[in-house]
Amino acid sequence: MVRLFISGFGTVGQGLVEVLKRRHDFFENRFGAQPVVVGVIDSKTVAIDQNGLDMDAVVARKTEKRTVSDQTYSDSVKALDMVDYDILVEVSPTNIKDGGTGLRNITHALECGKDVITVNKGPLALKFQELTDLAKRNGCKFRYEGSVGGAMPIINLCHENLVGENIRSIRGIFNGTCNFILSKMDNGQPFEQALKEAQQLGYAETDPTNDVEGYDAATKVVILANAVFHRNVTFSDVKITGITGITPDAIAQAAAHNMVIRLIGEISETRLEVAPRLIPIGHPLSIAGTLNIAQIDADLAGPITINGRGAGKIETASAILSDLIAIMDVRE
Amino acid sequence: MVRLFISGFGTVGQGLVEVLKRRHDFFENRFGAQPVVVGVIDSKTVAIDQNGLDMDAVVARKTEKRTVSDQTYSDSVKALDMVDYDILVEVSPTNIKDGGTGLRNITHALECGKDVITVNKGPLALKFQELTDLAKRNGCKFRYEGSVGGAMPIINLCHENLVGENIRSIRGIFNGTCNFILSKMDNGQPFEQALKEAQQLGYAETDPTNDVEGYDAATKVVILANAVFHRNVTFSDVKITGITGITPDAIAQAAAHNMVIRLIGEISETRLEVAPRLIPIGHPLSIAGTLNIAQIDADLAGPITINGRGAGKIETASAILSDLIAIMDVRE
Repeated sequence: MVRLFISGFGTVGQGLVEVLKRRHDFFENRFGAQPVVVGVIDSKTVAIDQNGLDMDAVVARKTEKRTVSDQTYSDSVKALDMVDYDILVEVSPTNIKDGGTGLRNITHALECGKDVITVNKGPLALKFQELTDLAKRNGCKFRYEGSVGGAMPIINLCHENLVGENIRSIRGIFNGTCNFILSKMDNGQPFEQALKEAQQLGYAETDPTNDVEGYDAATKVVILANAVFHRNVTFSDVKITGITGITPDAIAQAAAHNMVIRLIGEISETRLEVAPRLIPIGHPLSIAGTLNIAQIDADLAGPITINGRGAGKIETASAILSDLIAIMDVRE
Repeated sequence: MVRLFISGFGTVGQGLVEVLKRRHDFFENRFGAQPVVVGVIDSKTVAIDQNGLDMDAVVARKTEKRTVSDQTYSDSVKALDMVDYDILVEVSPTNIKDGGTGLRNITHALECGKDVITVNKGPLALKFQELTDLAKRNGCKFRYEGSVGGAMPIINLCHENLVGENIRSIRGIFNGTCNFILSKMDNGQPFEQALKEAQQLGYAETDPTNDVEGYDAATKVVILANAVFHRNVTFSDVKITGITGITPDAIAQAAAHNMVIRLIGEISETRLEVAPRLIPIGHPLSIAGTLNIAQIDADLAGPITINGRGAGKIETASAILSDLIAIMDVRE
């Protein structure tokens, strides 16, 4: 029996619970048992049951009272220690300043010899090397497919399917919000109006800085640089230009040359950048809408391009599911 | 030490030898040893050395005299038995009528308990169920990533990265030759002229029937139906329409509606078809040129689209490499 502790119980954490339910038969057939959730924390409270929590009840409680139980905690890592688990699923909110609670939770779990799955970009963008070293030292699996591109397979694609390739570069669109805004601007909308529509549709937050200034895309660029190119870089190493300076005039000029402007993240041995780029219409990276896309330049296979949904409750949880299955396959 | 027998020594077989050389350091670092080739057959002759063949010499000999040795054989499966090996790499020419030598070689190797890697579409399109059952019964690994889409990861992507998904459908372009011809027709060339150009560039064979009638795409559709949808179908179950009937007028009419015509393979629980389809310009499946592409509709992840080079000496060998590494990882 595999026991999960879920730290962070917002959209993605609850999405994972739904995904586990929907894959009941799959787990039964493949492993003869369900993974059980023995612990959940949100920002304030903790729910534990060494025999497995009733997750329907936890979700209902969270929906109703915005907490997972009446039991508050003072320190999240002490909350993790309240129950015995095998895998920490760290899905608390991203903190790109210092890694925040997510970084402390992941570090603690790895120090305790637990496997970790995360989609939390903060710890990965700030302390990738330290965390992967720690995991290796303690013999822990450490997987983070959903941290880049949501449901789009990219990390495991490079680590597993393309493991024999020398990957020379990755160029991609790693922020669906910016791509949505730029696609709207292609159709003549000015930036402010496109942003407003993105906010109304729930694609952009009230404070859109993290997306439109390119910071979110930069966290993905850092993660790919470390994970795929084995570099040892952090968020502050990325050269970042956002999309706030793009004018309708620039869009029109691009269109006159049969081009669109897209916010492209670029990673190679020597390059680490997020910036608006001119992309020819018809080029894979010219896609419109909220999709994420990555073009991988592999020395034997040649160019491989993959796209998928970069965000979403079930979509992001599906990436966690793929990491979970990979870990369970090895534990069997 | 992993010992390979390569059956078929044309472009792909020789490409594999080159790829193994180029990944010398990779194998050293990951496995502490190189895979060695202990046997090679082409259509007439066999070269063996239980301690590992000098493959530079075999390639040079093949280039010079068009055979791999002076030693002819009467029956390929007897040639396979002349040496002890771990993995058969079956890359002899595709025979879609009865599977030919490739089918006999794969069957024999699996019966002998050997692992098999193939890109040979004939055996897979005709006897998928029998071969996978035989492999399972004998505890053999049986992998065939390169049989669909060349360097584009699709089989292992579905089997591994997306193993927790219910895949509802796959739609894709599985024949680069047809896509090249249709892309040229987009620009106003009639079919015959586009075909001629494809032949001059080496994309199409002198007898182009297999490509332009949709037969090649249909073999890939069958393989995906069996491998991903766990159906038990064969080549004759596919409804096939090729591209020979597509007129410049049809292309022009499509263009007037902002569409292009593409030869699309479609696979689902109930569908098994290759036919020209109208695709909106800008849709991922509207790509031009010789690329292969597949759009996977997964129930949790949503739509995932991948593209890559569908053919080529090194590109196809790169797919074999990924299967080889996966098998060696498990053998370790």
